[in-house]
Amino acid sequence: MTSAPGTLYGVGVGPGDPELMTLKAARCIANVPVVAYFAARRRPSNARRIAAGLITAGHTELLFEYPVTTEVLAAEDSYEDLLLGCYDESAARVEAELVAGRDVAVLCEGDPLFYGSYMYIHNRLAARFTTRVVPGISSLTAGAAAIARPLACGDELLSVLSGVMSTDDLKQALVACDAAVIIKIGRNLTKVREVIESVGLIDRAWYVERASHEAEVCAPLADADASRAPYFSMIVIPSAVAGLR
Amino acid sequence: MTSAPGTLYGVGVGPGDPELMTLKAARCIANVPVVAYFAARRRPSNARRIAAGLITAGHTELLFEYPVTTEVLAAEDSYEDLLLGCYDESAARVEAELVAGRDVAVLCEGDPLFYGSYMYIHNRLAARFTTRVVPGISSLTAGAAAIARPLACGDELLSVLSGVMSTDDLKQALVACDAAVIIKIGRNLTKVREVIESVGLIDRAWYVERASHEAEVCAPLADADASRAPYFSMIVIPSAVAGLR
Repeated sequence: MTSAPGTLYGVGVGPGDPELMTLKAARCIANVPVVAYFAARRRPSNARRIAAGLITAGHTELLFEYPVTTEVLAAEDSYEDLLLGCYDESAARVEAELVAGRDVAVLCEGDPLFYGSYMYIHNRLAARFTTRVVPGISSLTAGAAAIARPLACGDELLSVLSGVMSTDDLKQALVACDAAVIIKIGRNLTKVREVIESVGLIDRAWYVERASHEAEVCAPLADADASRAPYFSMIVIPSAVAGLR
Repeated sequence: MTSAPGTLYGVGVGPGDPELMTLKAARCIANVPVVAYFAARRRPSNARRIAAGLITAGHTELLFEYPVTTEVLAAEDSYEDLLLGCYDESAARVEAELVAGRDVAVLCEGDPLFYGSYMYIHNRLAARFTTRVVPGISSLTAGAAAIARPLACGDELLSVLSGVMSTDDLKQALVACDAAVIIKIGRNLTKVREVIESVGLIDRAWYVERASHEAEVCAPLADADASRAPYFSMIVIPSAVAGLR
């Protein structure tokens, strides 16, 4: 007799403060036999660190190591292939647990479906296994909370941009929106800041690093130190009028 | 001797499922002596309903009633004034508690700084009182979780739009982005759907109502019933390629 297949859970653990996990995420992690998470090679997993208080010796842990850090080798031709292989292998390891009847929670910093790696596992398995997504606090709202400024209201257009975008694309998107959050800043900080200055938004822009972590840094973008911005830093440009009536 | 002023907490209680509150929100609500929330006139407060399991007889409750529902009278000249008066009065009631030394948690459906009413309290008081914002799961990530589809990845442009926007503004924004969430649908559904059809996105668009509630409804937008969409329904248009490598 074979057991019924396990359920795949994509679990957002939020931006960094373990207390910013949802009650549902905490319950799910405590109840599943297997937790899985991505990490940069030879670096601790951010998602695991956030959930550490809930992981016990009774859990089986699956670590998915990225072949290399995205930032360093993104320009190499072979990087896409390496990443594809990493996702295929990670999904196969999750699948083996599900087939054996064990539920698996894939832990995701922030939200599972918002610019994260969980989606690659999801798209390889969701059609064949029962799947549940537990949303998490994304960097979008964590960043707004960090600077304690209303992000957008009413019929305003709020855009999520990436520091990886070209100068022209960034400029065009910033001019078209009322408020913006730019993620994946890192070594793109100088470029992105120049674009923001060129469209006259520098006075409204905030640099936010490690939102909600103990080591959180918030500063007006004009004052941010471009020499040390980590990949997961961001820029928040709140609406000029949100909540100001 | 007068006591030190209380702290203002803007607390996101998430999209509807009480388990989608964060651990921090739950602790904050349990610990403050005063909880406050907005509600449409003579209607139960959504935010209070979500947090109901944490509110005890020991809490003082402040109910802020909107003068009328936004949808019905938004076109009237006087509505802005009525709303302004409501925000002024609500902030004054919070201020009285803070001055008396009591901490106040203003409960907000979704996230406090993402298209919500908390920002009007915040902007009236944050400069004068210690203020903490506890981010919440927004409709953005709750909607993606409801349809269980990756929203955006890599360097994609994700936009948050409002059903209140004009046809031209909606069209322009939809053409410019890779993925979109359109909030405040309600009676704008027919208009918004026509725009989405006109830009060729109807096959990717999902209608989501009451994400994460027991009464959640998800349907391909083409099949959604325009005669009954509530104000807090939304449309999710995930990226065409997120997670598909």
